[in-house]
Amino acid sequence: MFTFSCPVSFSITCSSSNGNIQNHGDYRVNINVNGSSCTRRPIKHRTLLNEVGVKEGSTSLSAIQFLENGHISEEKIRQRIPRQKQLVDPYRQGLITERGVGYRQTVAVRSYEVGPDKTATLESLLNLFQETALNHVWMSGLLSNGFGATHGMMRNNLIWVVSRMHVQVHQYPIWGEVIEIDTWVGASGKNGMRRDWVIRSQATGSTYARATSTWVMMNEQTRRLSKMPDEVRDEISPWFIQKQAINEAVPDKIVKLDDKAKHPKRSDLDMNQHVNNVKYVRWMLETIPDKFLECHQLSSIILEYRRECGSSDVVQSLCQPDEDESFANGVQQNLLTNKVLVGGNGRLGSLDINTLTYGYTHLLQTTGETQNEEIVRGRTGWNRKICTGL
Amino acid sequence: MFTFSCPVSFSITCSSSNGNIQNHGDYRVNINVNGSSCTRRPIKHRTLLNEVGVKEGSTSLSAIQFLENGHISEEKIRQRIPRQKQLVDPYRQGLITERGVGYRQTVAVRSYEVGPDKTATLESLLNLFQETALNHVWMSGLLSNGFGATHGMMRNNLIWVVSRMHVQVHQYPIWGEVIEIDTWVGASGKNGMRRDWVIRSQATGSTYARATSTWVMMNEQTRRLSKMPDEVRDEISPWFIQKQAINEAVPDKIVKLDDKAKHPKRSDLDMNQHVNNVKYVRWMLETIPDKFLECHQLSSIILEYRRECGSSDVVQSLCQPDEDESFANGVQQNLLTNKVLVGGNGRLGSLDINTLTYGYTHLLQTTGETQNEEIVRGRTGWNRKICTGL
Repeated sequence: MFTFSCPVSFSITCSSSNGNIQNHGDYRVNINVNGSSCTRRPIKHRTLLNEVGVKEGSTSLSAIQFLENGHISEEKIRQRIPRQKQLVDPYRQGLITERGVGYRQTVAVRSYEVGPDKTATLESLLNLFQETALNHVWMSGLLSNGFGATHGMMRNNLIWVVSRMHVQVHQYPIWGEVIEIDTWVGASGKNGMRRDWVIRSQATGSTYARATSTWVMMNEQTRRLSKMPDEVRDEISPWFIQKQAINEAVPDKIVKLDDKAKHPKRSDLDMNQHVNNVKYVRWMLETIPDKFLECHQLSSIILEYRRECGSSDVVQSLCQPDEDESFANGVQQNLLTNKVLVGGNGRLGSLDINTLTYGYTHLLQTTGETQNEEIVRGRTGWNRKICTGL
Repeated sequence: MFTFSCPVSFSITCSSSNGNIQNHGDYRVNINVNGSSCTRRPIKHRTLLNEVGVKEGSTSLSAIQFLENGHISEEKIRQRIPRQKQLVDPYRQGLITERGVGYRQTVAVRSYEVGPDKTATLESLLNLFQETALNHVWMSGLLSNGFGATHGMMRNNLIWVVSRMHVQVHQYPIWGEVIEIDTWVGASGKNGMRRDWVIRSQATGSTYARATSTWVMMNEQTRRLSKMPDEVRDEISPWFIQKQAINEAVPDKIVKLDDKAKHPKRSDLDMNQHVNNVKYVRWMLETIPDKFLECHQLSSIILEYRRECGSSDVVQSLCQPDEDESFANGVQQNLLTNKVLVGGNGRLGSLDINTLTYGYTHLLQTTGETQNEEIVRGRTGWNRKICTGL
């Protein structure tokens, strides 16, 4: 079994059973049922949440400490979060696009964001998605002193939680390469928000990756999902546009794996202080067999977040290949793999995303004395590539 | 015991017994003795090294693969590494300083580089040190297709290895804060290079952190340390300056801990593909008791790298507080801690680095059937801070 001591998480969460944002009744039930048994150390959980979203007038311990020693005002001076909409951010190489509502950031891939093959890791791309989303809100003048929450959300004790994410990677950028990341938001049902991203090569304009995600609001104290208050809708809806990075007419359902799923793996990651939804992706991918990874490159990932993860939860990661196990072992297929790649276009990481894709279904769940509870369901798609022999 | 399956490492290394770069005989002996027993999977090790430092004409398997499918040339186009010295890098917000030989980069602290207290983690600072060092070489026109190696080094099959690092943090920057990172190089003995860094607040100019490091050259194939060839000296010595970020007249010796050292801890990190010397720091700090971390902030760290770490090594991390264990438990001291901080200047993370510092000595070593071998010796210094209760 692949188990983790689950670290404190401030932006993770819960979702509907089918990734569709329409039926909010499901969400709320999920959170109620799971929230109580999940967060075994609620104080710790809340302290952390306040520290990333601390605000004046809050009664939390950490907020009081910060106010007493003057940390808030110093922090404001050092962060310089704008209260008005900005069109250009020279420090982050960001600018407002899409007739005033989109955001584009130019980024050079850093040395520590790449793996041994010198291409950016999926984790790095997800980190950059988070970063550009927050910088978009930063530029809008709507950012309060929390992690992406608007002033209206802070007044209503609301935080953002992600319920679904779908990423397609056509080509991974390499160390030192300059990329442009576009991001924008749109409506998702009555109470949700969609956020999309596109990564392009700055030099050629060719698209490297596309992503879409669904966000809902949660009450910071009760941990229940919330309707979008009118004052928040008034803040953010002027930024909504229709454009979609990935056309998802009918999103695929992700089935729930049972405990007989193959390729479980064990690892302890209880020392990680820096936690966000990127960590879940790491745990998920750690179950993929090494032999398979040697000859395949991740081309797409879909995540459905179903509940919060408490600080003392032990998490189990399971995965199951779509068909029989033979291709997953990878060894017998090396020759074919090389042939197919070189016959295609002969370049690492630039295969057509729709060809030769293999699928895995994933499940992260709590494990222990109580009943196992789902945290995230996932689907990954993989293309063959030159075997690295790592 | 705190043990790890040691991942493949391409920039890690070996050092003299006292952190002093003068006596090269010691270095070579260390590497010879340790190299053979350490790298249990030499093929894997070399493949990785070639992938980060692949060059035309190399006979390694991965280099041939890259050449055959035209990856090299595509990579060059995408990376656009300059062959001539550049004075300004608009994509990285970098510029050449110090009358043409230093480098300064302006960086906004990203959302995923901070911990739960919203300040940059030590790991993030170390990553930014690595990043700015490489960007400095990038700007110089000397960068070959390796990880910081010059053209002359590539012709001689040489790579950089770090032998010592000393970091002092006076104040941690916070999420969104804009900082300026200055870096420059100088001579270190006859065959080594010193690289220094200073991090300042962009808004106020106050110094947040200082660091100095010592680098030597290693033959990529033989894994032996090397003298600096004349052609390499001719490339890099025009960039050397005398200025020092930290005045280290007589560097403290770090004693070797014995196996009775306190606070060992266990963790498995065998899935990490992205490895550099920052990982060693994480392993080292994971042995510090949680209770101590709640009320103390790292203010300085010194690392002496003593040998390479092989892909299948199991690593043990040990630490020992300077005096008796009472302060390390942290609990009894909470009240005093708060008093001292508020009585000082009342701001988190801005204490005078020379006051109230507690020390730990660290040791990372291989463990298993063969004799334990030192990988890194370390010293950390800690200031009291407001207890976070994390």
